[in-house]
Amino acid sequence: MKAATLHGYDEALTSPKFVTYEEVDDPTIEKPTDVIVRIGGAGVCRTDLHIIEGVWKGHVDVAFPHIMGHENAGWVEAVGSGVESVEVGDPVICHPLVTSGHCLACRRGNDMHAGESSFPGINAPGGYADLLHTGERALIKLPQSLAPKDVAPYTDAGLTAYRVAKKAAGHLVPGEYAVIIGAGGLGHIGIQSLAALCAAEIIVLDRSDLALGLAKECGAHHLVRADDGAVDEVLALTGGHGAEAVIDFVGEGDAIDKGLAMTRNDGFYYIVGYGGRVQIPAIDMIVSEKTIVGNLVGTYAELVELMALADRGLVTLATREYALADANQALHDLHAGTVKGRAVLIP
Amino acid sequence: MKAATLHGYDEALTSPKFVTYEEVDDPTIEKPTDVIVRIGGAGVCRTDLHIIEGVWKGHVDVAFPHIMGHENAGWVEAVGSGVESVEVGDPVICHPLVTSGHCLACRRGNDMHAGESSFPGINAPGGYADLLHTGERALIKLPQSLAPKDVAPYTDAGLTAYRVAKKAAGHLVPGEYAVIIGAGGLGHIGIQSLAALCAAEIIVLDRSDLALGLAKECGAHHLVRADDGAVDEVLALTGGHGAEAVIDFVGEGDAIDKGLAMTRNDGFYYIVGYGGRVQIPAIDMIVSEKTIVGNLVGTYAELVELMALADRGLVTLATREYALADANQALHDLHAGTVKGRAVLIP
Amino acid sequence: MKAATLHGYDEALTSPKFVTYEEVDDPTIEKPTDVIVRIGGAGVCRTDLHIIEGVWKGHVDVAFPHIMGHENAGWVEAVGSGVESVEVGDPVICHPLVTSGHCLACRRGNDMHAGESSFPGINAPGGYADLLHTGERALIKLPQSLAPKDVAPYTDAGLTAYRVAKKAAGHLVPGEYAVIIGAGGLGHIGIQSLAALCAAEIIVLDRSDLALGLAKECGAHHLVRADDGAVDEVLALTGGHGAEAVIDFVGEGDAIDKGLAMTRNDGFYYIVGYGGRVQIPAIDMIVSEKTIVGNLVGTYAELVELMALADRGLVTLATREYALADANQALHDLHAGTVKGRAVLIP
Amino acid sequence: MKAATLHGYDEALTSPKFVTYEEVDDPTIEKPTDVIVRIGGAGVCRTDLHIIEGVWKGHVDVAFPHIMGHENAGWVEAVGSGVESVEVGDPVICHPLVTSGHCLACRRGNDMHAGESSFPGINAPGGYADLLHTGERALIKLPQSLAPKDVAPYTDAGLTAYRVAKKAAGHLVPGEYAVIIGAGGLGHIGIQSLAALCAAEIIVLDRSDLALGLAKECGAHHLVRADDGAVDEVLALTGGHGAEAVIDFVGEGDAIDKGLAMTRNDGFYYIVGYGGRVQIPAIDMIVSEKTIVGNLVGTYAELVELMALADRGLVTLATREYALADANQALHDLHAGTVKGRAVLIP
Repeated sequence: MKAATLHGYDEALTSPKFVTYEEVDDPTIEKPTDVIVRIGGAGVCRTDLHIIEGVWKGHVDVAFPHIMGHENAGWVEAVGSGVESVEVGDPVICHPLVTSGHCLACRRGNDMHAGESSFPGINAPGGYADLLHTGERALIKLPQSLAPKDVAPYTDAGLTAYRVAKKAAGHLVPGEYAVIIGAGGLGHIGIQSLAALCAAEIIVLDRSDLALGLAKECGAHHLVRADDGAVDEVLALTGGHGAEAVIDFVGEGDAIDKGLAMTRNDGFYYIVGYGGRVQIPAIDMIVSEKTIVGNLVGTYAELVELMALADRGLVTLATREYALADANQALHDLHAGTVKGRAVLIP
Repeated sequence: MKAATLHGYDEALTSPKFVTYEEVDDPTIEKPTDVIVRIGGAGVCRTDLHIIEGVWKGHVDVAFPHIMGHENAGWVEAVGSGVESVEVGDPVICHPLVTSGHCLACRRGNDMHAGESSFPGINAPGGYADLLHTGERALIKLPQSLAPKDVAPYTDAGLTAYRVAKKAAGHLVPGEYAVIIGAGGLGHIGIQSLAALCAAEIIVLDRSDLALGLAKECGAHHLVRADDGAVDEVLALTGGHGAEAVIDFVGEGDAIDKGLAMTRNDGFYYIVGYGGRVQIPAIDMIVSEKTIVGNLVGTYAELVELMALADRGLVTLATREYALADANQALHDLHAGTVKGRAVLIP
Repeated sequence: MKAATLHGYDEALTSPKFVTYEEVDDPTIEKPTDVIVRIGGAGVCRTDLHIIEGVWKGHVDVAFPHIMGHENAGWVEAVGSGVESVEVGDPVICHPLVTSGHCLACRRGNDMHAGESSFPGINAPGGYADLLHTGERALIKLPQSLAPKDVAPYTDAGLTAYRVAKKAAGHLVPGEYAVIIGAGGLGHIGIQSLAALCAAEIIVLDRSDLALGLAKECGAHHLVRADDGAVDEVLALTGGHGAEAVIDFVGEGDAIDKGLAMTRNDGFYYIVGYGGRVQIPAIDMIVSEKTIVGNLVGTYAELVELMALADRGLVTLATREYALADANQALHDLHAGTVKGRAVLIP
Repeated sequence: MKAATLHGYDEALTSPKFVTYEEVDDPTIEKPTDVIVRIGGAGVCRTDLHIIEGVWKGHVDVAFPHIMGHENAGWVEAVGSGVESVEVGDPVICHPLVTSGHCLACRRGNDMHAGESSFPGINAPGGYADLLHTGERALIKLPQSLAPKDVAPYTDAGLTAYRVAKKAAGHLVPGEYAVIIGAGGLGHIGIQSLAALCAAEIIVLDRSDLALGLAKECGAHHLVRADDGAVDEVLALTGGHGAEAVIDFVGEGDAIDKGLAMTRNDGFYYIVGYGGRVQIPAIDMIVSEKTIVGNLVGTYAELVELMALADRGLVTLATREYALADANQALHDLHAGTVKGRAVLIP
């Protein structure tokens, strides 16, 4: 099959050609629960740039040549002897984690904390290719309303944003406020999800007018420019108290300190973006009784829920399509910040 | 009435006489909901030493001469015209916060986050005295099994420990682990509360053999000396995963970093002690999906619950009695670390 | 003051004049927490007809002449010496229960289960009058966007519907279904509340085309005529499984049996309407693991939340105004089923 | 292999020989996830008598000759090609349901509501035999402290009792009460589980002195004879209010009506036993705001939790062993009420 493969790190991201579009071996069925998916679309994620930069060195082992692509959807191409829940030809979206389902975390529905798992595109061959090797437990059949190439980015960016929005919606009641920091790829799904899941007033912070405009379309009730006055502005909007939930999709620069400062006492600060550092004196945690919550991508069941929202049009996702052969263009456009919506590679 | 009053800060805690035992004006009923309580016992808390040192300067205004004492119990001495729920002579324990009950936090049972409140002993005259000015909403009638002087320290130290134990018990299931860091005044109530509220295995860390011995009596299942090998020892006890809940009653030195390190992925680190600083890279919060929870003293309803545990003997508290006239002795003994259990001043 | 008073029962509801518009004594401040409210509007509720019929005899003591009216809003006219949270002239809506706030249920925010309370209009003089005697704890200040006469019916009908919708929204996730049986006074608030609080698909059952039309305006996604085929129709809409939540605002006739039959296994049947009887073999409860939930009017905090929804226009209420002097006309119109929306008496 | 097989119904349970001890075909591995377990012990349950009586006719299809036995534990004898989590020789306890794990209920950890499942001993061949055909997802490896024959009855009776106790413990706080109706096979596990999981005071009702004695050993705080005065006695023990949780392991006769009557307003009545009928006027559900909860056997994760309690000795189970060849004796003894503890068949 054809794939866009990574042959080594490029720490400065300066190479004109990060990946090589070339012929590689087809993946094969090895275990009874294996499934091969013909890729309909593979999302291009900032994490892919981080992989190229080598940021994840030490955390995750990548074997070169590596096939990136962890946001995948397509059609079932082949199944192992034990596969019962999907058939060849089914349109499917792929949960990013492939798990055996045997550990207690999985048995409680908490797949993301599986004792053993693989993450195609990260530590196994991913979806920048014609075909993807995955497992039965990762697959959700798509309704007819949703084409694989249009939903692929939901599997990671969308699912992470949905999960954190659902956590916040679990405690937000009418009359309360949620702040969303960063209205980008994750943030704009987070806004839509939160608006669908609860009746809190949503305040969105971003540095960019374009992003704030998108936030408004997505259902934000108040827009705040993420500059030096942002904390005061949020306090003013919230009666001086801060917001009961702050969801930080940025997680670097001054976002974390500001995010904590605009969290109301007894409130929750959710951190999703990374790069920065959480730093707060213990006494401030105690007198404020705030809670700081780390957030991963969501569970399989949460991806099913997000697909239900997408199917009903309650959450929509802007994508820009590139041919798989043009993967380098997509990666460079992402790096340059010129992709509107989410780039998706089409084999 | 007689009181032990503070006339100024002593930052080095070197004065032989922190407070002055002297005659002061009796408190008086001013509002319909006011209550005067004749003190049966007033707990002496490390926070009192911090007040003397001036640690709380800037956070809380103290008017000299100040009467400390925020852990109070006694008998109703006088009531305002609107008081309906207690009568003169009733034995009562005093919730540390005096609230009007009108704000939304109070209406939801979340008194600790009241819009307006006073905290006798901290920002209003406290219980190092014959009489205390408080409010109807702060009072819980005691069952006959519990004498005021024996339960006074439950109102702050005990209630804080109970609240955090209850939070942790809310998610701990059989087969899971809780670590308690620090088996002192709060910790030993925390251990007993946790053992009463759930079936998690309890691991206690402390630097002191004495404290570990007390922990065992309180229901700890595993004892770990809080030295350099502590994190590894907890990991070994928990199958390499860490504990689903870590409750940190120390909150300074290396306790916080170690506490976070021994928290299992998807687990909760509860911070109660203070002095230190929470510091963690955002990426570590995200890949671990840990939650960091700040903790205050508990609600009125939680103090009722703690009294129910005490009434049934499921939680017990060691106290050492001092005459109110000997308040300086009690404070110095506390500072010297020679009080076994909790010091209580008896007028 | 003027009031519309009830001088005795009329079991057949045949009298042309249920109540008498006459001069009665003004209510007076007796306790420090008492408040007199000048009525801006008093909702006319089916429960008022039931009181006239004597349905509540035995459950609740009514002293004749009785002033009905338990859905009240207006302006503070006078306050007791201990009242701190409202001032004369404030526009307020009245929570239907007047409580002291001392019992443990109130301290946990669960006012509806107060140990002691009065219910003006039911077991104390109500709001079919110029003035109402109530208590400080029952009052919520209104935002400028909401006039007392427009919101009075929220206090009972609206608040009950909001509370049950909030309970259901607590467990409904995207992809799941809620059935609402009865799109009348409570039901149409229930639909709007549920649509604001979660993303479940809402199926509404009613016998009347008019009501189903209203349901659609309120946000229902599927309309089902409440006849013999209703259970099958709901099963068809829900993939054969039934709905995860069924909220029954009818509670009589065949509504209960049908409601239980269209509840999915592991789902919740909420009963709000009454008149009928819950009857189900134990074995059916067990193999289905269904839950049957009884529902009262909501808490004070929930009324605050509902006002927040109303203030933002997320919930709206149709009212028809009558002069207080025309109370009999309003009651007869309600009995005849000719009131569109909720009747409100204006003194 | 040898098995004790049922060749037809015996509605009056009068036959001296319900089952036939005979040679039957060994089960075989058919699917990659199949597992054959060599039975170490199979619990004999009242449901087995109900199967013989034909009570489940219409609900569940039994193919004669049928092998009963749904409470099984033993050692892995053979595994399918896809089995990864157990090996031949492993000591295991068998969750009663065999599921594929593909449906959304399973993905959320809610195995009991699997879209497709088999229940060996009920609708597939069970454990009254040398060997059992089950699936990988049903198996939990046993710690060395627990022998298969000693834990087999936990899989159904124990797991059901644990699950309902866990539900109740989720809302019971210190100072509250739980009533357990029926201290038999399920009840005595329920008492121990509840005592391990929360600090509520436990009141146990039973008609038999023997059972009440067992209840006391299991941790009951108050014993009440289940006769005409039982409701009044529970009300007296609970300050006139009733218990916040009532768990009814009887579910027939007057147990249900009494159970509901001794449930506090705003409280939960859990029904586990069956035979009777839940009957209550809608108005009583509403003014009391009670909740009625149906209860099934627990999830896989809950069986892991129960094993953790058993491993630590927090829950113990009395068993009486019979040779498999003596299955008729065990069934007759159970029918006669002469088995102390739980009968277990040993091949």
